[in-house]
Amino acid sequence: MERGPIPVFFLSDSTGISAETMGNALLIQFPDLIFERRLIPFIATAEEARKVVAVLDEAMDGPVTPLAFTTAATDEVREVLRTSRVPIIDFFEMHMEKVESILGASGARVAARLHGVGDIKRYNSRMQAIEFAIEHDDGQSLRALDRAEVILVAPSRCGKTPTTMYLALQHGVFVANYPLLDEDLETTNLPRPIAELGDRCFGLIATPARLSEVRQQRRPNSPYASLEQCTKELRRADALYKANGIPVINSTTRSVEEMSTLILQTLGSRPSLEGSRP
Amino acid sequence: MERGPIPVFFLSDSTGISAETMGNALLIQFPDLIFERRLIPFIATAEEARKVVAVLDEAMDGPVTPLAFTTAATDEVREVLRTSRVPIIDFFEMHMEKVESILGASGARVAARLHGVGDIKRYNSRMQAIEFAIEHDDGQSLRALDRAEVILVAPSRCGKTPTTMYLALQHGVFVANYPLLDEDLETTNLPRPIAELGDRCFGLIATPARLSEVRQQRRPNSPYASLEQCTKELRRADALYKANGIPVINSTTRSVEEMSTLILQTLGSRPSLEGSRP
Repeated sequence: MERGPIPVFFLSDSTGISAETMGNALLIQFPDLIFERRLIPFIATAEEARKVVAVLDEAMDGPVTPLAFTTAATDEVREVLRTSRVPIIDFFEMHMEKVESILGASGARVAARLHGVGDIKRYNSRMQAIEFAIEHDDGQSLRALDRAEVILVAPSRCGKTPTTMYLALQHGVFVANYPLLDEDLETTNLPRPIAELGDRCFGLIATPARLSEVRQQRRPNSPYASLEQCTKELRRADALYKANGIPVINSTTRSVEEMSTLILQTLGSRPSLEGSRP
Repeated sequence: MERGPIPVFFLSDSTGISAETMGNALLIQFPDLIFERRLIPFIATAEEARKVVAVLDEAMDGPVTPLAFTTAATDEVREVLRTSRVPIIDFFEMHMEKVESILGASGARVAARLHGVGDIKRYNSRMQAIEFAIEHDDGQSLRALDRAEVILVAPSRCGKTPTTMYLALQHGVFVANYPLLDEDLETTNLPRPIAELGDRCFGLIATPARLSEVRQQRRPNSPYASLEQCTKELRRADALYKANGIPVINSTTRSVEEMSTLILQTLGSRPSLEGSRP
């Protein structure tokens, strides 16, 4: 069946990150359909909600029936949004009552800034973690490496930096990363700067073909990017990880979110590290 | 009423990011309650789900009734999870049927990697955006500044870097940032390197007290961290933004997520920039 893209709206009285996340978690189950997504965040008043309803109803008059997801927590805003002719999936309404009954408590039902500054101490630790990550990116600084909760170890271009940034930004984890150079790979011993820190290391690998492709983008037709060189480095890195009992994650098959989740899971089962959190 | 922390489980057949996001969006409405959160991601089989049920039921026998959120999409996994005695909020089940009926299509109902690599082109552009962000952090490189879709401009320590990283990592936006130094603030003209790029600049400010506090952490009791110096720089930066029609965002009252959403909203209403996306 041929049809145009389906207009999808994400509505929120704050950033809309929750509405997008949950909405997309459902839409990904329809890989054959094409969606045209639009985020409308910060809907703060009934007045603003009425303007949004006008936008929605205009879309309703188009050729393809739209769909809207909302996480607005303010009753006033939600009531106005409900007057739209567009079908709305209301994540808040549907679950709030159930959660209230389980908890035996009433929810505040106010626009809550889940993605606001919130807990200022936690927020500041995320900001500090980013600073730490940038300072220690790509082995730039070996100072205070023992303050790192996690050290990502890998040959060049295996995805250390994005994973470092994600863990810092989203979880406030202090992450350093250490690039394995040719001289580090001559033996299976941990390189000297991280020799005593093996218990907080995670090793990344990739497929040789993918690594070569990524390196080609940086230095086309260089020995550095050759399939032969990539294969050699990855094989030796893998041997080094195994020799030192370092958990290995494949960045070709895993996204930064998945790699981060795996790392946090492993950290969770190592309570000693949690305690060393700066 | 006095009671211990409420155990909360986030269950998923992938990263659990959606379950955490939606669950926390509801829990934030109960600011007086204390929760003890636990994420159990990557529940891939019925067998693994049974182990999770054992963990849940053990918590059920504790002093405080727990609560679980799940976004598992696999019917097999979900059916096993439902056998737990712990009350479960199932984000998938409750909404999938409604979405299917609105869309007039059947969802795949498989463990979907919303936070997996997914659309490889989009994923790679996020990774490239992080590289670009690091290369252009804090005015380090003024090369290829015209490739930036967004340039964050601000005095030192106003929150440019975390916002840059967030926009790059989550949205694949190419962001550079430019620190306003004393000499840049002598006039209200845009500094030479960004003089022609004003239409993609966003200016950050903070409150003088907060800026001074953040700078104190870096260089205690320095003139740089003094309230007087911070006040002066912020006043001049604000004048420079106004003189050049640059949108201003306050990083003391806004989180990186909120600042990023505001920036994306503004970009959305400037279609010309979208087109220049590298």
